[in-house]
Amino acid sequence: MFYHVKELQYNAKPSKPDAVYAKKLQEILGGQYGEMTVMMQYLFQGWNCRAENKYKDMIMDIATEEIAHVEMIANMIAQLLDGAPANDQEQAAKDPAVEAVLGGMNPQHAIVNGLGAQPNDSVGYPWSARYTVGSGNLLADFRANLNAESQGRLQVCRLYEMTTDPGVRDMLSFLIARDKMHQNQWMAAIEELERTQDAVVPSTFNPQHEKQEVAYTFYSFSEGTESQQGSWANGPTMDGKGTFEYIQNPEPMGQIPNLKPGPPFIHGTPPTNLKNGEQSPPQ
Amino acid sequence: MFYHVKELQYNAKPSKPDAVYAKKLQEILGGQYGEMTVMMQYLFQGWNCRAENKYKDMIMDIATEEIAHVEMIANMIAQLLDGAPANDQEQAAKDPAVEAVLGGMNPQHAIVNGLGAQPNDSVGYPWSARYTVGSGNLLADFRANLNAESQGRLQVCRLYEMTTDPGVRDMLSFLIARDKMHQNQWMAAIEELERTQDAVVPSTFNPQHEKQEVAYTFYSFSEGTESQQGSWANGPTMDGKGTFEYIQNPEPMGQIPNLKPGPPFIHGTPPTNLKNGEQSPPQ
Amino acid sequence: MFYHVKELQYNAKPSKPDAVYAKKLQEILGGQYGEMTVMMQYLFQGWNCRAENKYKDMIMDIATEEIAHVEMIANMIAQLLDGAPANDQEQAAKDPAVEAVLGGMNPQHAIVNGLGAQPNDSVGYPWSARYTVGSGNLLADFRANLNAESQGRLQVCRLYEMTTDPGVRDMLSFLIARDKMHQNQWMAAIEELERTQDAVVPSTFNPQHEKQEVAYTFYSFSEGTESQQGSWANGPTMDGKGTFEYIQNPEPMGQIPNLKPGPPFIHGTPPTNLKNGEQSPPQ
Amino acid sequence: MFYHVKELQYNAKPSKPDAVYAKKLQEILGGQYGEMTVMMQYLFQGWNCRAENKYKDMIMDIATEEIAHVEMIANMIAQLLDGAPANDQEQAAKDPAVEAVLGGMNPQHAIVNGLGAQPNDSVGYPWSARYTVGSGNLLADFRANLNAESQGRLQVCRLYEMTTDPGVRDMLSFLIARDKMHQNQWMAAIEELERTQDAVVPSTFNPQHEKQEVAYTFYSFSEGTESQQGSWANGPTMDGKGTFEYIQNPEPMGQIPNLKPGPPFIHGTPPTNLKNGEQSPPQ
Amino acid sequence: MFYHVKELQYNAKPSKPDAVYAKKLQEILGGQYGEMTVMMQYLFQGWNCRAENKYKDMIMDIATEEIAHVEMIANMIAQLLDGAPANDQEQAAKDPAVEAVLGGMNPQHAIVNGLGAQPNDSVGYPWSARYTVGSGNLLADFRANLNAESQGRLQVCRLYEMTTDPGVRDMLSFLIARDKMHQNQWMAAIEELERTQDAVVPSTFNPQHEKQEVAYTFYSFSEGTESQQGSWANGPTMDGKGTFEYIQNPEPMGQIPNLKPGPPFIHGTPPTNLKNGEQSPPQ
Amino acid sequence: MFYHVKELQYNAKPSKPDAVYAKKLQEILGGQYGEMTVMMQYLFQGWNCRAENKYKDMIMDIATEEIAHVEMIANMIAQLLDGAPANDQEQAAKDPAVEAVLGGMNPQHAIVNGLGAQPNDSVGYPWSARYTVGSGNLLADFRANLNAESQGRLQVCRLYEMTTDPGVRDMLSFLIARDKMHQNQWMAAIEELERTQDAVVPSTFNPQHEKQEVAYTFYSFSEGTESQQGSWANGPTMDGKGTFEYIQNPEPMGQIPNLKPGPPFIHGTPPTNLKNGEQSPPQ
Repeated sequence: MFYHVKELQYNAKPSKPDAVYAKKLQEILGGQYGEMTVMMQYLFQGWNCRAENKYKDMIMDIATEEIAHVEMIANMIAQLLDGAPANDQEQAAKDPAVEAVLGGMNPQHAIVNGLGAQPNDSVGYPWSARYTVGSGNLLADFRANLNAESQGRLQVCRLYEMTTDPGVRDMLSFLIARDKMHQNQWMAAIEELERTQDAVVPSTFNPQHEKQEVAYTFYSFSEGTESQQGSWANGPTMDGKGTFEYIQNPEPMGQIPNLKPGPPFIHGTPPTNLKNGEQSPPQ
Repeated sequence: MFYHVKELQYNAKPSKPDAVYAKKLQEILGGQYGEMTVMMQYLFQGWNCRAENKYKDMIMDIATEEIAHVEMIANMIAQLLDGAPANDQEQAAKDPAVEAVLGGMNPQHAIVNGLGAQPNDSVGYPWSARYTVGSGNLLADFRANLNAESQGRLQVCRLYEMTTDPGVRDMLSFLIARDKMHQNQWMAAIEELERTQDAVVPSTFNPQHEKQEVAYTFYSFSEGTESQQGSWANGPTMDGKGTFEYIQNPEPMGQIPNLKPGPPFIHGTPPTNLKNGEQSPPQ
Repeated sequence: MFYHVKELQYNAKPSKPDAVYAKKLQEILGGQYGEMTVMMQYLFQGWNCRAENKYKDMIMDIATEEIAHVEMIANMIAQLLDGAPANDQEQAAKDPAVEAVLGGMNPQHAIVNGLGAQPNDSVGYPWSARYTVGSGNLLADFRANLNAESQGRLQVCRLYEMTTDPGVRDMLSFLIARDKMHQNQWMAAIEELERTQDAVVPSTFNPQHEKQEVAYTFYSFSEGTESQQGSWANGPTMDGKGTFEYIQNPEPMGQIPNLKPGPPFIHGTPPTNLKNGEQSPPQ
Repeated sequence: MFYHVKELQYNAKPSKPDAVYAKKLQEILGGQYGEMTVMMQYLFQGWNCRAENKYKDMIMDIATEEIAHVEMIANMIAQLLDGAPANDQEQAAKDPAVEAVLGGMNPQHAIVNGLGAQPNDSVGYPWSARYTVGSGNLLADFRANLNAESQGRLQVCRLYEMTTDPGVRDMLSFLIARDKMHQNQWMAAIEELERTQDAVVPSTFNPQHEKQEVAYTFYSFSEGTESQQGSWANGPTMDGKGTFEYIQNPEPMGQIPNLKPGPPFIHGTPPTNLKNGEQSPPQ
Repeated sequence: MFYHVKELQYNAKPSKPDAVYAKKLQEILGGQYGEMTVMMQYLFQGWNCRAENKYKDMIMDIATEEIAHVEMIANMIAQLLDGAPANDQEQAAKDPAVEAVLGGMNPQHAIVNGLGAQPNDSVGYPWSARYTVGSGNLLADFRANLNAESQGRLQVCRLYEMTTDPGVRDMLSFLIARDKMHQNQWMAAIEELERTQDAVVPSTFNPQHEKQEVAYTFYSFSEGTESQQGSWANGPTMDGKGTFEYIQNPEPMGQIPNLKPGPPFIHGTPPTNLKNGEQSPPQ
Repeated sequence: MFYHVKELQYNAKPSKPDAVYAKKLQEILGGQYGEMTVMMQYLFQGWNCRAENKYKDMIMDIATEEIAHVEMIANMIAQLLDGAPANDQEQAAKDPAVEAVLGGMNPQHAIVNGLGAQPNDSVGYPWSARYTVGSGNLLADFRANLNAESQGRLQVCRLYEMTTDPGVRDMLSFLIARDKMHQNQWMAAIEELERTQDAVVPSTFNPQHEKQEVAYTFYSFSEGTESQQGSWANGPTMDGKGTFEYIQNPEPMGQIPNLKPGPPFIHGTPPTNLKNGEQSPPQ
């Protein structure tokens, strides 16, 4: 169960309205790697957690914090929209400043949301639950989380560079620091899990059911051998159980596929080797 | 530019048709973490790559292999659908075996695809480009790739456990081995990148613009302190630049949000503190 | 900012696993009118609220409760999935009970979510932010909320009838009661708002800009006059400002549309009144 | 069955082209609350109607009118696009007027639709059937309809304020009036239904299966008591069967959730309480 | 503007309920090539038509008929759902007939739609406006229409084979005949248009701006030469302006792509050729 | 299995960056009829092909070429984005050229993709697998392919007209020529198939199960008779088996639909013919 307090986790006050930037800021609210994604991803991972309680507790802690991040950004966007102009295009064309705002802002911010934040990304695409993952295997999911925090912090940093508003930058500097913490946190949790199981997910699959001959082979399917120069093509593998092998000219190992014609009730392509003018009979 | 050879990379021959399993197998073809996702994700990362050529070459190698994986699974699904029955429900109800197939198979496999594979997941949801990521920052993207291969191998292992068909299992044992290689590969590449830059993405953001006070703090937003027992709450941080701090009772640091009323042309909520019967005037 | 306590708002314990029912229960978790929808809808309405604080506070209260409802249902679904079988189809066909589960359950619950809840509806379609609305006009939005709680309670009641599990029914009886409260709440708030403004949203639009002649007219576009028998076709209108008028045979009031040919750079249909064999020249 | 006449229901003639406004106008054509939504929502409600014929007839009347509204707006948009420029960006940068149009218009209007309307909203997102609802319970659905007409009229009014074109405004003034009629109509129908059944949907659920103790309780999950000041927290409830109760500090009533580990074939998180270096065995 | 009559265009009466078949029938209602698609596609093509009036009139005729087809199928589905059971899974497991229905029906038909048709396809995916096309070039669009009617009739024929219900088959036999008419109609219209313009769309593009050297060349990118045996690789081309040429071993004609590093504010991959331990400086 | 060479199929080098045009160019990369669509559509048609090998080989040839087209366009877009400005809106407003770029470019190109191409269309909507079709009936699918190449070439021609960059135009002139070839190719293959089967898809359906009376009838559902002037309303039908018939005033042939009330557990609309104040009892 959850409780709410009225104060935001951190300040979210722009120095002045900027409807065009509000549109861009939607990316870290409702985008693929926005705060809604980590909020919902962590909540479901926590609720579905079947491992030790310290993991469930930790996931729920950070999930609950993420709701507060969504709250901060939503509030910021609403304020950035405060001064959005309503003027029609004709008048706007005369005033470059107005026109710049009208041309660059998201029209739904005015028409649909009445100058409020929306649960969408910076091109107006709605947040989708397919952005999240909760597999029930914590090592797999913590890698998803580390990725989400990496992509997320990268996007916040890019947005920081795109504004000079000190109020906006103040809030972003907070989010950038929290994303650093969260990257550190998931890296620590991953390292902890890798100490008690294999680094390859899932570690519990019977290795006898795996085709070992191709488990450590790098296949070069492109011309050239530049890809041979990396640590992925030489030396011991990261799971400590093999050695990387580099194959310059991989050969296919499988059959030439050949599908049977479908049954009559499917009405697939009728036999095509008839002579000109000869009709295939109805089946 | 690309070339095609007729042979599959590895065998993809089921022992017998199984239309219900064909539906499930769609998950690793067109699902969020199916082969279409890694194929398209790696292709775009390779095409957009602005780093050293050895990375671009390596990414294109594996991307090209993934097209062959999509090909194998599509071929397998088409064969699993070979014996799908067409009978109507009434007849099916009399024959439990037929009914089991009809009730459990994806109806589109017959109606839409004529007993062919479809670019969708196991519940028929179409593959979406929002599953992929290519940020232009290789460390961020390699973490996305490691996650994709981890979730992907987990799903293939689960599908392996759900069948006893030796032909299907043979193909899956190949994919499980390749996904082990790919996890090893991305881990190796990540380690290589982390040797020349910070582990926190992006490493190039000016730290003076980041709120350092909260960059290594674990906030407990839930009751209880079980989350304090992990390596994410104590000791040195993973980037080697700080020490994890645990805050039991975090306090808000921000303002109580208070938005201004919208302008008249937005037609938001009119003033509500009027007396009963007193109408707010049209604006 | 938000806090979390470990206890659920109300009990969520099934008497025994039921993977098929788990699939159906997803509807009120991640469906169009599931708890995720009201949770996100109310959160955004609260964060964007520009009206009196008592409204914002009330909306945030109920929004925070809805997070707890999502939590309860997610937890219930995970437990309903506890006994999901892994057996392959061949074995299942021999055991009708196993087969019934395998045929009717959502395959992603095992393959993707590892026996956990997913943020999707009962056919596996992911939750979408386009389910929500926050217009910045409270009367409009409270009508959306009343609709959401009406559709939601209807669905929970239908799901109640589809199970006999006393633990599941206990949780649903709680949700059904809360949805009754929420319908009452939004009706009360709507009545309160309608006392200080017109019943027609938005009440602030200048009536001189509205075509009054057609503002209270019921047009019958179907044969027959059964639609004349309702209160929508006779007597005073609900806004107290007019009288319903019934038009049996409505006539069009507009022009016959006639669009100009497109410019050459659009490459629309070339002129088609050429004689046989005469070619339209390249533009 | 349906018939078509060539005349539009009302005039739809802009005074001059305006490709930027055409993009915005798409919101009330193919948006979440655009005319396509009410058209399809009412058609399906009418076709699925199992109640008295007067309701079915009335719903079909208005549904048929809505097709004509879609027609008007589509026609208007095509005309607004008449003068869209093709010039390239370089030339446009020299002419602010051209540039304003090119920067602000929807590129698909030219590339995909050849200067025609598209069934999408103002950010180009395609209309989705998940916008509609038809539950088979008329009271629930009429509330959905009242909401749709309220959001819809609000959006049309906002669009009216964003243009000064008298032809566009003329058409919008017609739609604004019709939406007033439709709000009145659904309010009248709702009142009529509420006279013969409970106001809470569904009215037919057995109240003994509902947890009465929490059916009229307002829980304050936020700090502060501003939410206590509304009619939703005091006095008789809207269904006339209870009294609103206000709970300042709600306590959880449920269990602390604790999920069992998953079975081996799911390959969830392996036991994590192993000592450093000790591996969990493959299952 | 449109009018409605109460009678269906053709009978739509099943002999008995069949909830499982109702789910399948959704494919031709709300699927990619269902009746909703041709209805909306033709309506928008008609409304956007900038060519001669006889085309606009013809398109509107068939569009109006398609609304009636949607109406028939929706009505059929509602009747097929009439006898859907509500029993829970436990009871169903004892009665194979009930269980077969419960396991195979779409749960939303009961939970969401109250035994009514829904605007979705046979796996419950909502109809999307991206299924339609209206390009403003009639030859292009008539090819889209011919494709839609071909895929559509194929699906209806497959559904005909999947039932023995004489009432359902009667309605399908009507739709199959109408789809034959519509294929004939679009073929006739295409032939008519091709008589006055080139067969290649668009016919109005300046051929000097087209790289003629590759305009009639078949490239074999696969091993083997089986693809050389078709009429696409030999003889005169279909536009009557060239001769098909077959290239066995195509060579790339373009550059090796090489992208510049991104600017600092993008925070792409930092230079990776640093020595071990040497950090790239923050930018 | 597939191989990759580093060179592009044809040159893809812009003369200078143009971030606004990059956004538009996305339409033919990840749009409904972009290169990703034909690439995936042909790959799946090839993999699922159950007809003669020469068809499978031909489809795979062109599918493999389409991957190279996606590669070219992705590369072009990345270069067009090279000079995208990061400046904030305030500075941009002072420099019209910068502002024109910032207002018109896709914000995700910078924030999400780090100046790389994305698998989306020109309004940022992600590519969806529902764009593709593979029915298992080659005549149906070749019509889909002819449509895709027609819409695709039309869009490329429009994009050609929207730029003056010689490098971009050079690449587009290549794609325009290849799309001419592909239209010719599918037309040839269609003609070849129509020589051995009926022109109406599917040709194998038993004509006795089709309602012949309406198989060649053109119904005029609109006022007026302009639609009678086309070749679709007079003369022999295209399948050579009938004569077009024109019906000016079509009459309905079906029943007036009348659905039974739903069962109690569905909680549909309760009986509405009760007197004022009389309540329907709970069921």
